Amino acid sequence: MSDTDVGRLLVSCRDQPGLVAAISSFLHAHNATIVQSDQDTTDPEGGHFVMRLVFRLPGLEEALEELTAEFGEEVADRYDITFRLRIAAERTRVAVFVSKLDHCLLDLLWRQRRGELGVDIVQVVSNHPDLADEVARFGVPYAHIPITRDTKDIAEKQQIELLAGRVDLVVLARYMQILTGGFLDALGVPAINIHHSFLPAFVGAGPYAQAKERGVKLVGATAHYVTEDLDQGPIIEQDVARVSHRDTVADITRRGADVERSVLARAVAAHCADRVVITGRTTLVF
Amino acid sequence: MSDTDVGRLLVSCRDQPGLVAAISSFLHAHNATIVQSDQDTTDPEGGHFVMRLVFRLPGLEEALEELTAEFGEEVADRYDITFRLRIAAERTRVAVFVSKLDHCLLDLLWRQRRGELGVDIVQVVSNHPDLADEVARFGVPYAHIPITRDTKDIAEKQQIELLAGRVDLVVLARYMQILTGGFLDALGVPAINIHHSFLPAFVGAGPYAQAKERGVKLVGATAHYVTEDLDQGPIIEQDVARVSHRDTVADITRRGADVERSVLARAVAAHCADRVVITGRTTLVF
Amino acid sequence: MSDTDVGRLLVSCRDQPGLVAAISSFLHAHNATIVQSDQDTTDPEGGHFVMRLVFRLPGLEEALEELTAEFGEEVADRYDITFRLRIAAERTRVAVFVSKLDHCLLDLLWRQRRGELGVDIVQVVSNHPDLADEVARFGVPYAHIPITRDTKDIAEKQQIELLAGRVDLVVLARYMQILTGGFLDALGVPAINIHHSFLPAFVGAGPYAQAKERGVKLVGATAHYVTEDLDQGPIIEQDVARVSHRDTVADITRRGADVERSVLARAVAAHCADRVVITGRTTLVF
Amino acid sequence: MSDTDVGRLLVSCRDQPGLVAAISSFLHAHNATIVQSDQDTTDPEGGHFVMRLVFRLPGLEEALEELTAEFGEEVADRYDITFRLRIAAERTRVAVFVSKLDHCLLDLLWRQRRGELGVDIVQVVSNHPDLADEVARFGVPYAHIPITRDTKDIAEKQQIELLAGRVDLVVLARYMQILTGGFLDALGVPAINIHHSFLPAFVGAGPYAQAKERGVKLVGATAHYVTEDLDQGPIIEQDVARVSHRDTVADITRRGADVERSVLARAVAAHCADRVVITGRTTLVF
Repeated sequence: MSDTDVGRLLVSCRDQPGLVAAISSFLHAHNATIVQSDQDTTDPEGGHFVMRLVFRLPGLEEALEELTAEFGEEVADRYDITFRLRIAAERTRVAVFVSKLDHCLLDLLWRQRRGELGVDIVQVVSNHPDLADEVARFGVPYAHIPITRDTKDIAEKQQIELLAGRVDLVVLARYMQILTGGFLDALGVPAINIHHSFLPAFVGAGPYAQAKERGVKLVGATAHYVTEDLDQGPIIEQDVARVSHRDTVADITRRGADVERSVLARAVAAHCADRVVITGRTTLVF
Repeated sequence: MSDTDVGRLLVSCRDQPGLVAAISSFLHAHNATIVQSDQDTTDPEGGHFVMRLVFRLPGLEEALEELTAEFGEEVADRYDITFRLRIAAERTRVAVFVSKLDHCLLDLLWRQRRGELGVDIVQVVSNHPDLADEVARFGVPYAHIPITRDTKDIAEKQQIELLAGRVDLVVLARYMQILTGGFLDALGVPAINIHHSFLPAFVGAGPYAQAKERGVKLVGATAHYVTEDLDQGPIIEQDVARVSHRDTVADITRRGADVERSVLARAVAAHCADRVVITGRTTLVF
Repeated sequence: MSDTDVGRLLVSCRDQPGLVAAISSFLHAHNATIVQSDQDTTDPEGGHFVMRLVFRLPGLEEALEELTAEFGEEVADRYDITFRLRIAAERTRVAVFVSKLDHCLLDLLWRQRRGELGVDIVQVVSNHPDLADEVARFGVPYAHIPITRDTKDIAEKQQIELLAGRVDLVVLARYMQILTGGFLDALGVPAINIHHSFLPAFVGAGPYAQAKERGVKLVGATAHYVTEDLDQGPIIEQDVARVSHRDTVADITRRGADVERSVLARAVAAHCADRVVITGRTTLVF
Repeated sequence: MSDTDVGRLLVSCRDQPGLVAAISSFLHAHNATIVQSDQDTTDPEGGHFVMRLVFRLPGLEEALEELTAEFGEEVADRYDITFRLRIAAERTRVAVFVSKLDHCLLDLLWRQRRGELGVDIVQVVSNHPDLADEVARFGVPYAHIPITRDTKDIAEKQQIELLAGRVDLVVLARYMQILTGGFLDALGVPAINIHHSFLPAFVGAGPYAQAKERGVKLVGATAHYVTEDLDQGPIIEQDVARVSHRDTVADITRRGADVERSVLARAVAAHCADRVVITGRTTLVF
């Protein structure tokens, strides 16, 4: 079996009877064998239906376009389904936005090089020049686009021009600028942010200093989709680490950084494996 | 929707094309709406197919017998499927075996009373009289069946007579006796044991003392199905807790007890929700 | 060595040179051998000094009063130290306040019976009669003191009369009433509360429903000292459990309950072992 | 206060009365103010006494030699104490041994660059050339010393010559060669290894494949001091990560790699902060 014979189908629609049968029968009729599937309904009455399938189909690569068209006509149109059908081995093209802190960015670059995340990092964008050398070593282009209050509009336009049609996902790896709604619309692909706290605790700036001041015993990090409302987007992944009174704000920041990079990597991997579905303000993660 | 309208189907067989379609089409044809499903294949080539479905079907309670028969004829026979089809709200009848330590037993009794585990504890069996009063308070019969080396055969016969036809599961909640292969055969239902270590570390007696002696930084507990090979049965659930050099063997034992009771409760809940499938020496847990 | 030969000294004062030497030399001069000690300073310059010592001294029980007086005169007065000196095996007298949910209360009663927490639960107080039978089985008096908006004053007076001089600590084990500042003053001993969220996330009512609505991936619990500001007291212990989109609010509540009982038990044990020192809004936990 | 004014004293000896007083009085008499101390006794009767102190002393750098000599004469000789007294900011000189896997090595190099571990990595040694470029980017010398069964003796001699007098610690960051007792003796400094399992489970080769085969639900990593007995040295740190039946051996290996790098980093940081004391087969970690 070739790697390109394995496909992945992610389906989302209003819940209706017969959906699993219709989807799986379609695949069977087209000689695909399902090897893994997860399906859920947000509410047994009037809820939202979500299904993720992994299947193998000899010759999938050649058949993909036709299969997609036929699934659209025979199944998706009938049930008003939103779907994504692709070769499982296909890599997601990612742009990483970063400011000066390197831990999340480097972890993503390392993991990409090890083949862990299912991504191709095709561009790094930063409002600072600091990490250019580091990124160059991985052979990834680094665009330094400075931002001041006055140049935000222009900078966002530059970013959009740079990325247009080249990326499937933007990852904010400790990028210390707020993306405007206009930017997100123009971008047209999802963006994932890592927030350095266990949201909704410590919304806003300086969460580790807030955590020290409040005397919490755990600090956390939250990866979420970016929406116009800062720190309010649908959460993909969270985790925490234990801290004690002996830890200074610097210690807490270091421990937090370890959590941030692993939470962000898990969120990116889940997104790129088509494991995440947004439903309203929240997500389903298979 | 009545509680008794929700059903659960657990399917296991050699992997073949068309299984998801056949199963889901059968349910759809019988007016059942699938609300949750998980499916996996242990190996994409020549592996084992496992699927768990939750569905609702108005009037399921009355229709269950016929539905079961028809699923057998129309699907299971054709694909050589082993399956279990039942009303999701149906409670598993459980006998708990215990010696003198109360923490796992009490936790199960509390959780049953709170309606957490999907079980009816119909009998407690012990080789000691110590916990009789405690169990009586929960309104559960307590059978004191002493065991010596010479009376093991007789005791096991008594146990089998006591439980025959009355239980779907036996839980060993720190029961300090080894069950013989003959007993397990005669019992005819699965048995789950809690071992007080992170298996396969510290197989055998006194694992917490062994852990102290070896200076480990984490101690754990393992819930597994009971087989004739002591501590070698398929693992259902495991967890660990952090210990330090300041902890005495008594401290470690206490921390371990907390892990034991929660691991055992999770394993029992998973089993009773038809989430566990044994495949060879291991399990799939959905 | 008798159990009553082991003492514990908790010291707190403004940081000054020579404190460790003065304290340890005093103990040595009085024939005490230090077996464990932890010491910390909140800030190397102008900070707060905290030290906890465990020592053995043959005949401590008889010598305790004199030793305390001499430590006061020879050390504490000189350095303006606040201290607590007592026999390590001495049990803390506790009143547990509860409403209708039993999981935290039962866990405390059960751990007390096992001798785990270093406490004597001398009284349970509830604004509901529901848990009276359960508590009676542990041989602990149960006072049902109903509270309405109009009777809160009278009820608090009754509670104070009931407890005056009888307890060293009050534990709120899911007690659904707010304690007034007047009550806390009159009580004169610390109170520990378990809040069913990872504070400061989800302050206030219905935190598990809030957690579901926000789509968080972890839920937590926080044990803290009670102050007049609801949910703002110094935090003693916190922990979290993982939840997923498949968990209903009821599922999350159950998982949360497990975290609540273990976090509360750990906080009570730490307090009763003289491991917790309040410094401003936060705590040091040795 | 200058950074070089903070000192650290680690003391270890047979337990005797008056040790804390003698040590702290010595420091006080020499104008040192203790800012943090931890002390423990492995057994209240006939045990081993261990104490770690952090203190500040203006002008410590100049006074260190004399202070060390005087502590030796006035305290250590009298109580037969083994001690280490040094400036807290002093960095431990480390050689990292590695084969082909880069995750532990890169994490150490990166943490060193961030100033996290209290180390100077002065040399990387490998039996393979693969990671030379990567290491060069961090400005650390890379010695490629190939090893075959026949050249092991010569290779170990080369390694010893390379490192003699230059390092305080050797870290085996997934180094796939066994160090001989002769090498360890000649080395004369401690060595820390990361074993890719939760020891003592899965001793030996291929632990992740063993873990998959046994169906465990958690995989772990163990950092321990290297002794002649493979995988039997005193454990410094351990941790685990959850895996499921869906994880392949490759998935488990990846999750394990994340645990390995964080466990190794924590162990190295603890060692270099003088937080670890070996007592027989085990360690105390403050």
